[in-house]
Amino acid sequence: MDGRPRRVANVDRVAGHLVIASNRGPVSFRRDGAGRLETVHGAGGLVSSLRPLITGTGATWLGAAITEADREAAARGLMEADGIGYRSLALDPETYRLAYDVVSNSTLWFLNHRLYDLSRRPHLDRGWREAWDAYREVNRAFAEAVMEEAPEGATVLVQDYHLSLVGTWIAEERPDLRAVHFTHTPFCDPVDLRILPDVVAQELLAGMASFRACGFHTRRWATAFEACCADVLGTQPVTFVAPLSPDPESLATTASSPECEAAASHLEEVIGDRHMILRVDRIELSKNLLRGFMAFEELLHTRPEWVGRVVFVALAYPSRESVPEYRAYRREVEALAARINQHWGTPGWTPIMLDTTDDYPRSVAALRRYDVLLVNPVRDGLNLVAKEGPLVNHTDGVLVLSREAGAWDELAGLALEVNPFDVSGTADVLAEALTMDPEARREHAAVVHAAAAHRTTRDWLDEQLVAAGAGGVP
Amino acid sequence: MDGRPRRVANVDRVAGHLVIASNRGPVSFRRDGAGRLETVHGAGGLVSSLRPLITGTGATWLGAAITEADREAAARGLMEADGIGYRSLALDPETYRLAYDVVSNSTLWFLNHRLYDLSRRPHLDRGWREAWDAYREVNRAFAEAVMEEAPEGATVLVQDYHLSLVGTWIAEERPDLRAVHFTHTPFCDPVDLRILPDVVAQELLAGMASFRACGFHTRRWATAFEACCADVLGTQPVTFVAPLSPDPESLATTASSPECEAAASHLEEVIGDRHMILRVDRIELSKNLLRGFMAFEELLHTRPEWVGRVVFVALAYPSRESVPEYRAYRREVEALAARINQHWGTPGWTPIMLDTTDDYPRSVAALRRYDVLLVNPVRDGLNLVAKEGPLVNHTDGVLVLSREAGAWDELAGLALEVNPFDVSGTADVLAEALTMDPEARREHAAVVHAAAAHRTTRDWLDEQLVAAGAGGVP
Repeated sequence: MDGRPRRVANVDRVAGHLVIASNRGPVSFRRDGAGRLETVHGAGGLVSSLRPLITGTGATWLGAAITEADREAAARGLMEADGIGYRSLALDPETYRLAYDVVSNSTLWFLNHRLYDLSRRPHLDRGWREAWDAYREVNRAFAEAVMEEAPEGATVLVQDYHLSLVGTWIAEERPDLRAVHFTHTPFCDPVDLRILPDVVAQELLAGMASFRACGFHTRRWATAFEACCADVLGTQPVTFVAPLSPDPESLATTASSPECEAAASHLEEVIGDRHMILRVDRIELSKNLLRGFMAFEELLHTRPEWVGRVVFVALAYPSRESVPEYRAYRREVEALAARINQHWGTPGWTPIMLDTTDDYPRSVAALRRYDVLLVNPVRDGLNLVAKEGPLVNHTDGVLVLSREAGAWDELAGLALEVNPFDVSGTADVLAEALTMDPEARREHAAVVHAAAAHRTTRDWLDEQLVAAGAGGVP
Repeated sequence: MDGRPRRVANVDRVAGHLVIASNRGPVSFRRDGAGRLETVHGAGGLVSSLRPLITGTGATWLGAAITEADREAAARGLMEADGIGYRSLALDPETYRLAYDVVSNSTLWFLNHRLYDLSRRPHLDRGWREAWDAYREVNRAFAEAVMEEAPEGATVLVQDYHLSLVGTWIAEERPDLRAVHFTHTPFCDPVDLRILPDVVAQELLAGMASFRACGFHTRRWATAFEACCADVLGTQPVTFVAPLSPDPESLATTASSPECEAAASHLEEVIGDRHMILRVDRIELSKNLLRGFMAFEELLHTRPEWVGRVVFVALAYPSRESVPEYRAYRREVEALAARINQHWGTPGWTPIMLDTTDDYPRSVAALRRYDVLLVNPVRDGLNLVAKEGPLVNHTDGVLVLSREAGAWDELAGLALEVNPFDVSGTADVLAEALTMDPEARREHAAVVHAAAAHRTTRDWLDEQLVAAGAGGVP
């Protein structure tokens, strides 16, 4: 799809005919003090990006019931909040757990990010086969709910790897629907797809290929998906490339909030006149926190002039702690930071400031202030921080970016490149970034800002609608 | 190179003009009781395969000095044993250790077999860069020794991933030499090559591409190498495909030895009238011992009729125990076998017979007797056991083979296929193999025997000589 002249569809034109499906919906529920159900904003990056664009349009959004309160709300069927029709799907909890924990997060996520220690994982045994059946069941439930809610000819946007198979039943039973899928992760290369049992690989790819089109954040992931389809299905799916971008207004609102200003003051006290290297990440195996710390230590070792003069602020909040690999990784990250601090620290200087609390205004405050932003994932669908940083930073900070992040496509030649596996190379690039002269920093910051501001979230949404053929809807 | 009409060169015709270089040479040295240096046969599969073909030809073979006695022998320069000129290269021990342990076995081996747990390894830091320099130095020392020993226009066969760069200096300084390289491992795909620092990837590929041709056990690895060269160098190297095969005579000699017969009797006592699943491997991360045991357990669980009626004989001898990952893997292998035996075993039946002693005649005895031979590596350059088994087996045993082994190319459609990551699928195929009726077993054994016997070690050697252009030497 990419490369062809772009037609911008308008979400308002299709809104009444728009159905969105994602694992997490736009609202979640909880009990208030009096025991009544009340709504809260849904969590997660996708919801944060998409929700503001959909609010008030009358679109319908389907998500899984996650909490017990969600499950109760699900019994009420379609509800309305902030001008969004919302329906929560109550799935059997064990079925949902198998689909979400075992298949989505411990198989497809690991496969697409190349996180498997292949001499040990995965072991696709009987239990895993049951989990795959559960994944299919959850996808089928989503497909049925979509078909119940979607009026004739509606546009259906299905989000992410949790819901790869939804198109299977829509294509068979409701060919009138304009359903597209968007993947927020990378996609695996054929050599990695071979890890899956053949019948599973076929079902996965056929399920995705049954959508009118499949979207990715970069041409690289779309090409990988096409190569897998050519290998396994012998067919060529329709793909499109639509990188997500942050919403500058929403970032600006947070940046000017009192919470953000308070966090900025606190940060100023901690950093003082030292240089600041920053990272902002989930504690996630693909984010490469360990090698980031190793590179920082090599920098101190090989460039002793930086000892005492730079602080590595690592804002890294825990995630997926129900998966043992993530708990183990968190312990390793904390232990490495502690070891480096013990070895290098002095009474007046802590080299690594690792903070594992999840505090968005504080993250934005740090992004406004960094001298160097390190974004070095081993593989990443996009990495929104690589765009958020340049958008809000006001200190001519330097972006150091992994070539394995999807965002690399838009920032190649502008950001400083790192190979995430190359600890020495990363140390070299950090040193280069720290010593860049003010004029070069200004120029760098201007070009990465411009590249990050080139698109907005709305472009990403519009391109999905175009891919769905929704430009033709009156 | 493959696909073109095959000309069989004769090693005897080129022998006086033949130089071989490999990490381990054809002989090793030790001190006898009187303190005098004496020679022993060199260890390793490559030496076992190649040595008998070279014996008596007057070819010259260069290898690294491994033991202290080797290093003393190295001072004597070129020696002669069994009609082979032999020269041992004494390298600085620390330089050799860095090249062998850190680069060859912990980087190139891991990369080509996809064994990295990428969220943690590798970390290519300052220490690793020094190891890469050491690897280059060892390769340069081999190149210099080759050029010293090789007469004008000689054919030079350089073996394996330890010596990838040797062609660099030969191409520059002795273009008269007909030097080819042969890789016994798989070769990585471009997505994995990206793990290496760019300058290292370039040096590695350019070094290999500077040979007149690069050989691999299968078209799959040759294609991967070509894809890497296209990506990184923008050039197309000359490749050829020459799968190694066992030497049937040497196998027959071992099979009829008293040691082998004694081992066969002992095995008969242990197995009795039970069925026997066999594996014969180094304890090696790529060999997939853990999932083999898991699949066996799933077989017992899902087909209780096999409980007490089948023994899984795992002849798995330790290797590379200087690398911590191998020691850890060995412990996991032993612990899993012990757990399964404790859970399923009875006073009269031990489900898994794991033996970690290295006893070649005993291995051959077991290969003669198996009902099912499981060869399920996650990735393997060739896997000689997959051919040795069918060659010597005399009980119409069934070969269950991973599609990720190089040997799969020659045995596809003949052996029973497993996806090595698919524990359930492997259990299903083991059950299918165990229940195959006698007539089907006879037919199966005949066709896999024929495929395994189709080539000999001499074909493999001759094809290297052809690739070197040695057919033109008088």
